[in-house]
Amino acid sequence: MEPNRSTSSDDYAADISSIRQAQVRIEPFAHKTPVLTSETLNSIAGRKLYFKCECFQKGGAFKFRGACNAIYSLDDDQAAKGVVTHSSGNHAAALALAATLRGIPAYIVIPKNAPKCKVENVKRYGGQVIWSEPSMQSREDTANKVLQDTGAVLIHPYNDGRIISGQGTVSLEFLEQASEINTLIVPISGGGLISGVALAAKAINPAIRILAAEPMGADDAFQSKINGKITKLSEVNTIADGLRAFLGDLTWPIVRDLVDDVIVVDDKEIIQAMRLCYEILKIAVEPSGAIGLAAVLSDGFQKNPAYSECNHIGIVISGGNVDLGVLWKSLDK
Amino acid sequence: MEPNRSTSSDDYAADISSIRQAQVRIEPFAHKTPVLTSETLNSIAGRKLYFKCECFQKGGAFKFRGACNAIYSLDDDQAAKGVVTHSSGNHAAALALAATLRGIPAYIVIPKNAPKCKVENVKRYGGQVIWSEPSMQSREDTANKVLQDTGAVLIHPYNDGRIISGQGTVSLEFLEQASEINTLIVPISGGGLISGVALAAKAINPAIRILAAEPMGADDAFQSKINGKITKLSEVNTIADGLRAFLGDLTWPIVRDLVDDVIVVDDKEIIQAMRLCYEILKIAVEPSGAIGLAAVLSDGFQKNPAYSECNHIGIVISGGNVDLGVLWKSLDK
Repeated sequence: MEPNRSTSSDDYAADISSIRQAQVRIEPFAHKTPVLTSETLNSIAGRKLYFKCECFQKGGAFKFRGACNAIYSLDDDQAAKGVVTHSSGNHAAALALAATLRGIPAYIVIPKNAPKCKVENVKRYGGQVIWSEPSMQSREDTANKVLQDTGAVLIHPYNDGRIISGQGTVSLEFLEQASEINTLIVPISGGGLISGVALAAKAINPAIRILAAEPMGADDAFQSKINGKITKLSEVNTIADGLRAFLGDLTWPIVRDLVDDVIVVDDKEIIQAMRLCYEILKIAVEPSGAIGLAAVLSDGFQKNPAYSECNHIGIVISGGNVDLGVLWKSLDK
Repeated sequence: MEPNRSTSSDDYAADISSIRQAQVRIEPFAHKTPVLTSETLNSIAGRKLYFKCECFQKGGAFKFRGACNAIYSLDDDQAAKGVVTHSSGNHAAALALAATLRGIPAYIVIPKNAPKCKVENVKRYGGQVIWSEPSMQSREDTANKVLQDTGAVLIHPYNDGRIISGQGTVSLEFLEQASEINTLIVPISGGGLISGVALAAKAINPAIRILAAEPMGADDAFQSKINGKITKLSEVNTIADGLRAFLGDLTWPIVRDLVDDVIVVDDKEIIQAMRLCYEILKIAVEPSGAIGLAAVLSDGFQKNPAYSECNHIGIVISGGNVDLGVLWKSLDK
């Protein structure tokens, strides 16, 4: 009898080898981001924390790694027609930037309600903004029209092996910079980042613990793990605008098999973590980027004896694209 | 005839040797802070910029380097009686932190009008806060009373060879991390940081250009260089609360001889630079910390042909202790 193919690691959309290839491919373009530490935060958390600051990545988020890997994976003929995406956020800016570096067009479908600084990033990096209505249907329809008109290649923000491999380079760097890490806490949304991080980290150290951090108002990964299958939500509601997507069919098997647990936190905890990032670490972090720290400080983590051995914790600060006014207004409440 | 002693480098309060000793002394305690770069800022400035992020130093500013060097230079008997300072700012927090690490008391005289986050830092790091009136006279009188009562050692925030040597370690690290730098831009206030930086940098590379960045409302260094002698101002008025001090008799000879020029910027330019630090570099930077970027972007620098060869510019981001509300309110104007 043939084994269930979906549980075989051969079937994952990426692996340590594709991630190492991605690292070589993006190395001339991406920043090797620093790892920060803080005695003050260690003392608050009761553990040693290491912060991988992808807010300092080009484009202000880890997304550049995947976008750059995807774009430089294209052959010249494909590339010449350009790329398209209907992500509104950091993936859009990252794709625009990587496309500009390769000298090809990037068509970015953006819903009218997207945060101002994210739209500015897309424009600054040379992306061609194409507006849609906020609904996912309008976004997909608009993107499809661009695909038909231009022959461009669709680069999905997470459900794509090239993207997962690119994001996995975070892990390779992080574990090189702080090899004592025995636990990684990674924001989860569509699952591209955590899939790449988990594949690389478990290949390097099978004993490493991989924890996802997810907002309560968009906890599809938490629900999916409980249900043993992709579970979409009828609505999402969280300040973490980068964490509102659902797992895809390529990220789900990796999350199912390699993510040890999902820690759910509420928006208040996320905002408090943003404040600590600003005040103690001195970094600008968007809500999605602060969720890993929120998870470590949450009761769900602190009071759970299952995590008592998680004493060297690597936290991926995924991005820093937050309007200062938005940050101030959310902290001022 | 005996040469004018005050122009001899033998008379400076520190040198490359004392700075290298400081590096060894503080290495177990201080962070090696990262250097960030940004293509966006390079393109705005028309030069390659390198940002030495002392906002990530312990205590949130470079001041920890000098304070740590001073405190670990004390012999055990001296140290046991503790240290005192009447700085209200980052030096106070840094001294408190370094004293706590050595297990000795730090008495910090703080004027009642000091920014809240700076007072919080002093308390968080274990300093004993002693309030004074805002006037310098009250601050000095209060500090003298503490000295008499406790026998503690006064550690001046900048007019002290141990402090200058500690701050100079910024240079050693920075030029190791980015050896292509041919110009350093450093905030100037009492002159401790730039004195240490200049002494080390010119010893490593005599051709390196050292530029001071100073706020228009507290331009005593600019005036002093013009007049050829220490020139104090009758009043100061700048948003850069860390840059309101005047040169001392130990820092002045070094600034006079080794600082090639002083670039003066106004508060509006400082605020714009803070915004760029937040939005592009994703770092929290206090007004004093952003002044180096403000100087590079100023007309006084950009349009001066004397600086046309300054194409690899190292900027010292001196600190990040800024209340978020203060930042937002100054940017929102």
